[in-house]
Amino acid sequence: MIENSDKYFSSRALGMKRSVIRELLKLTSKPGIISFAGGLPAPVTFPVRHVREAFNKVMDEESHIALQYGSTEGDIRLREDIKKIMAADGTDASTDHILVTTASQQGLDLVAKVFLDPGDTCICCSPTYLGGLQAFNSYQGVPVGVDLDDDGMIPHKLEETVARLEAEGRKPRFFYIIPDFQNPAGVTIPNERRKQILEIARRGDYLIVEDTPYRQLRFSGEHQKTFQSMAPEMVLSLYTFSKILLPGFRLGWACGPLWIIDKMVMAKQAVDLCTPPFNQSLTHAMLVNGALEEGLDDTIALYGKRRLLMIECLESELSDIPGIHWTRPEGGLFLWLTLPEGMNTEELFEKAIEAKVAYVPGNAFYPDNDNFRSMRLNFSYASENEIVEGIRRLSRVIHDNL
Amino acid sequence: MIENSDKYFSSRALGMKRSVIRELLKLTSKPGIISFAGGLPAPVTFPVRHVREAFNKVMDEESHIALQYGSTEGDIRLREDIKKIMAADGTDASTDHILVTTASQQGLDLVAKVFLDPGDTCICCSPTYLGGLQAFNSYQGVPVGVDLDDDGMIPHKLEETVARLEAEGRKPRFFYIIPDFQNPAGVTIPNERRKQILEIARRGDYLIVEDTPYRQLRFSGEHQKTFQSMAPEMVLSLYTFSKILLPGFRLGWACGPLWIIDKMVMAKQAVDLCTPPFNQSLTHAMLVNGALEEGLDDTIALYGKRRLLMIECLESELSDIPGIHWTRPEGGLFLWLTLPEGMNTEELFEKAIEAKVAYVPGNAFYPDNDNFRSMRLNFSYASENEIVEGIRRLSRVIHDNL
Repeated sequence: MIENSDKYFSSRALGMKRSVIRELLKLTSKPGIISFAGGLPAPVTFPVRHVREAFNKVMDEESHIALQYGSTEGDIRLREDIKKIMAADGTDASTDHILVTTASQQGLDLVAKVFLDPGDTCICCSPTYLGGLQAFNSYQGVPVGVDLDDDGMIPHKLEETVARLEAEGRKPRFFYIIPDFQNPAGVTIPNERRKQILEIARRGDYLIVEDTPYRQLRFSGEHQKTFQSMAPEMVLSLYTFSKILLPGFRLGWACGPLWIIDKMVMAKQAVDLCTPPFNQSLTHAMLVNGALEEGLDDTIALYGKRRLLMIECLESELSDIPGIHWTRPEGGLFLWLTLPEGMNTEELFEKAIEAKVAYVPGNAFYPDNDNFRSMRLNFSYASENEIVEGIRRLSRVIHDNL
Repeated sequence: MIENSDKYFSSRALGMKRSVIRELLKLTSKPGIISFAGGLPAPVTFPVRHVREAFNKVMDEESHIALQYGSTEGDIRLREDIKKIMAADGTDASTDHILVTTASQQGLDLVAKVFLDPGDTCICCSPTYLGGLQAFNSYQGVPVGVDLDDDGMIPHKLEETVARLEAEGRKPRFFYIIPDFQNPAGVTIPNERRKQILEIARRGDYLIVEDTPYRQLRFSGEHQKTFQSMAPEMVLSLYTFSKILLPGFRLGWACGPLWIIDKMVMAKQAVDLCTPPFNQSLTHAMLVNGALEEGLDDTIALYGKRRLLMIECLESELSDIPGIHWTRPEGGLFLWLTLPEGMNTEELFEKAIEAKVAYVPGNAFYPDNDNFRSMRLNFSYASENEIVEGIRRLSRVIHDNL
């Protein structure tokens, strides 16, 4: 009966495409391939003992709450826990400023839903998180990229882009920024530059959407201030437990001005009624029991070691190539490798798969221009042996195709 | 800094209002109030033992899977389980036709996202599920109501409405139907009428969105065929584990044509990446262990008993009032009480709260017209004693205000 299925879809749905990365990632799960392509936490970091203890406590004491419907705003006890996490990081927010989300991807979906009309622009880094681009695109928003360097988004480029968009009558709705150990580039914006970006936002009355899933995973260097702590009246921040506790619960939160949180609550009600109360009860019990304090140090030590190893391997295998560059993340899960002019990481991908190593070609992360010289490498998931062997394979592919 | 917050929001967000029901429900949680207002399953039906067994099995055998990210489509084992549930109900769908959702409210969100452009109409019952209306409205869709009677949506009214919309150039994008024990009215569409509705849909090339969260909870009468089993090529069905297992996991599924499921997968990726793998692993383990077979009979017996009791109470307390009417659901969680001409359940609500009994005023469930004579009564949550006393209180309020 259905001859032309397109006629049934919204124009928003007609614009949705299967993610290139998703299709690529299917190739990377073939046996024998060492993959730096995913963005998965290492399962060894999952706090299994804490999950068990929390489960037993919750089922003994409050199964009628944990297995029932809950409030859209989220479990008040969990929001109290989050309030403390935020306070320890310099933000003095009441629980009313905190909305529990079904992980931070839902935070991005709600941001796009409440801020973007079709055709509306928003500022992103170039490159930026693919899931952010997908969320904005899925509401027919138009992400506009601002270049970054090893210190993240470049303020004078931001200024130029905003001025251009204003002149074109396409005033952006917000600045989307991943300030800490950015996905995909691994770079962090220093305090001084954060202030400059804030100043630009203030001058034009712009909101900042701060997405900071990796913030607590710092291996070296100094903590920089969150945008939230610097300007709570104009910043909405998105966090997740996925990278600091475990991803399988799909639990995150948004923190920001009441008038934004209030609107996001209304939007969330129609989206999923509430984030699983079961997962919230368990996470609250885990946090009370110190799962975060106990687990984070080990996770940081592990990822820090792997990051160091990957950089050492890159240095010994690739530093002879003129024009090659990689970032040196002080935290997070990813680093960003840029090949010499003329090379193409999408073309190289097939050869890498043949050599049994995988990465994500960088072009997918660019909001509005092509850039084929870069690739994203994940250092949290592969073992130390795999990192050594994987970078060896990757290096061979790169050298063979110079 | 933020002087006019409205200027930041999308027009979609500006249209979002706090739900009247949510505000009312806050009143109903005051101590001493017997509430028929919510839609909660009875906690005594939660399969606590099965949750414990499943948890231990999952943590022993697959914590690295359950606590990790998962696929957007959903755990293939859970989709196999769902395939069997669908097969037992007359639908022969492969797992490709099944998408795991973060409960059926997400199914509604995805439906609205992929089908509705701003201003697009869709057909609903009048009254219909509030969460459906919220989902459609949140994408600036325009739900258009079709009257129902004790056998659900009235086919000739549907025909008239569709013809009118077509003549106005406002062809609806789909028919949204809750065929079994409808929320809020508790009515079920008989097979014969389902065929008539399908015929109307076929003639105009319309999709049917079948939302059937209570289907397995039938206390009496004959199972009617699902729209999905009758016309899988043109029906998208939404199901949930919330009412048949437990709501706290937020797990449901969509089943439909590949070309729709495929688009919903793309949309879901940007919405939450995946439904919690932890909750999917547990549910799979519970289903394998027979949690559904063991639990459903008890749930059906309990709700059937409470429904019967509530109807007996209504009969003994209210049948002397001319023009009063209530539905006699053969399953589900709700019945629908219509007061005599001239009465107003919104005005009565405050008096009911004073008398320490609560219901949901019916007007909130109407997509495009006001109707103040009805109220929704939930019979799954209150105990037998509470039902007797609650209906006594309600009856007194109604009699006092005739």
